[in-house]
Amino acid sequence: MAVELAASGTIGDDALLSKDELHARLRAVGERRYHHLHPFHQRMHAGELTRGQLQAWTLNRYYYQSRIPIKDSLVLAKSDDPAFRRVWRKRILDHDGDQDGYGGIEKWLQLAEASGLSREEVIPCTGVLPGVVYAVDAYLALVRDSSLLIAVASSLTELFSRDLISLRMDQLRLHYPYLSSGLSYFEGRLTQAPEDAAFALDYVSTHAQTRREQEQVIQALERKCAILWAQLDAIDYAYVQPGNIPPGCFVPQV
Amino acid sequence: MAVELAASGTIGDDALLSKDELHARLRAVGERRYHHLHPFHQRMHAGELTRGQLQAWTLNRYYYQSRIPIKDSLVLAKSDDPAFRRVWRKRILDHDGDQDGYGGIEKWLQLAEASGLSREEVIPCTGVLPGVVYAVDAYLALVRDSSLLIAVASSLTELFSRDLISLRMDQLRLHYPYLSSGLSYFEGRLTQAPEDAAFALDYVSTHAQTRREQEQVIQALERKCAILWAQLDAIDYAYVQPGNIPPGCFVPQV
Repeated sequence: MAVELAASGTIGDDALLSKDELHARLRAVGERRYHHLHPFHQRMHAGELTRGQLQAWTLNRYYYQSRIPIKDSLVLAKSDDPAFRRVWRKRILDHDGDQDGYGGIEKWLQLAEASGLSREEVIPCTGVLPGVVYAVDAYLALVRDSSLLIAVASSLTELFSRDLISLRMDQLRLHYPYLSSGLSYFEGRLTQAPEDAAFALDYVSTHAQTRREQEQVIQALERKCAILWAQLDAIDYAYVQPGNIPPGCFVPQV
Repeated sequence: MAVELAASGTIGDDALLSKDELHARLRAVGERRYHHLHPFHQRMHAGELTRGQLQAWTLNRYYYQSRIPIKDSLVLAKSDDPAFRRVWRKRILDHDGDQDGYGGIEKWLQLAEASGLSREEVIPCTGVLPGVVYAVDAYLALVRDSSLLIAVASSLTELFSRDLISLRMDQLRLHYPYLSSGLSYFEGRLTQAPEDAAFALDYVSTHAQTRREQEQVIQALERKCAILWAQLDAIDYAYVQPGNIPPGCFVPQV
């Protein structure tokens, strides 16, 4: 149902891009639209956030984290290739773990706890900003309603996550030492994300066989960047200036 | 897929509410959560917005306006009762008109033009904020994926729109006289919205036959209030403080 969002590039030029040209186009999207540029991340990395603002971030982003394995299950369900599914199912394992108390979702809860929240406050997602819920649900809808090629392409933001995570870990340790015990999620992603991104980049490079499909891959990455960006818009709006927390949402006590 | 958003009230108490009690609960939702309370509307009514900010509002809200008949078509498709459909189809007529150049969508374009935009800038929806698109699409998903009762209940924000529209027309004429030629959308809604709301209120009062269904009706209204509110969050964030317009979105030139 969604309108195409603020997408650049015109579909219709017939000349197929080389792999290098495609990769350059994808990198250019990241340089302009990935959320490392977002004002909320800049505040975070400059040490300007309060503990309550970091709580709001961990609580809201938990909704995103909790939906990742659902997104990846939707991707799995689009593939009729056991070899593809064997690779992609690693993502579900990474987030869910192989027993209770392990995996990325659990590690994100440890970050939330380090910020001073209890897991009982976080897991029900009752105080999450509607703007965050709508953005994350738009990601699920994008993956659910698109081809496997576009679903895979929408994961390509992981091409850019390693640099952001490295910087974030340094800055969180420096400015917010109480979070230091909760950083194991990011440590895991430092190796997982580049592996996942390399597979997805190879997949779209091979399976986008027309210029139109290549442009769809680039637009899928733009749409995913917008989804990540909009989550931070909602958090920055609600928790940086006073008086903007929507009715019924999490109110920091610190 | 969506988590239940910041909903009040507990489902499970078995005592059926009287119609008066149900109506009081619904009015209480509006008093606390309807977007007449939103900071962006308060700025608007205080005369604090620039022409560019009003352009951003008309351009972004056009996406919502353009999706209303799609939403109402989804509602129609849920009903197997010709009498219900005869009443509800009026809403589609109100927005689409019965020939090109009439109807609520056209009138909204006249408002956008009064703000200084061309209809060619507005209709493609290319510069709409992702946060607005996700919220509006969440409304379509709510209607699409819910029962007819909940779909009808989600329209009940119209119970509260008459007072807001009356105030808005007065304040727009007072503070932004250049918009005066574009207010016919609101003039139409002054009579349409109360008629529509009265039918929907009667419908949910009659068809919610258990306490659980009554609570679902109340929660549907809360969810719709959150959808309206989140659109203004996105607009207020992007266009009131400098530096917050997401990549690729509308940039006012005035």
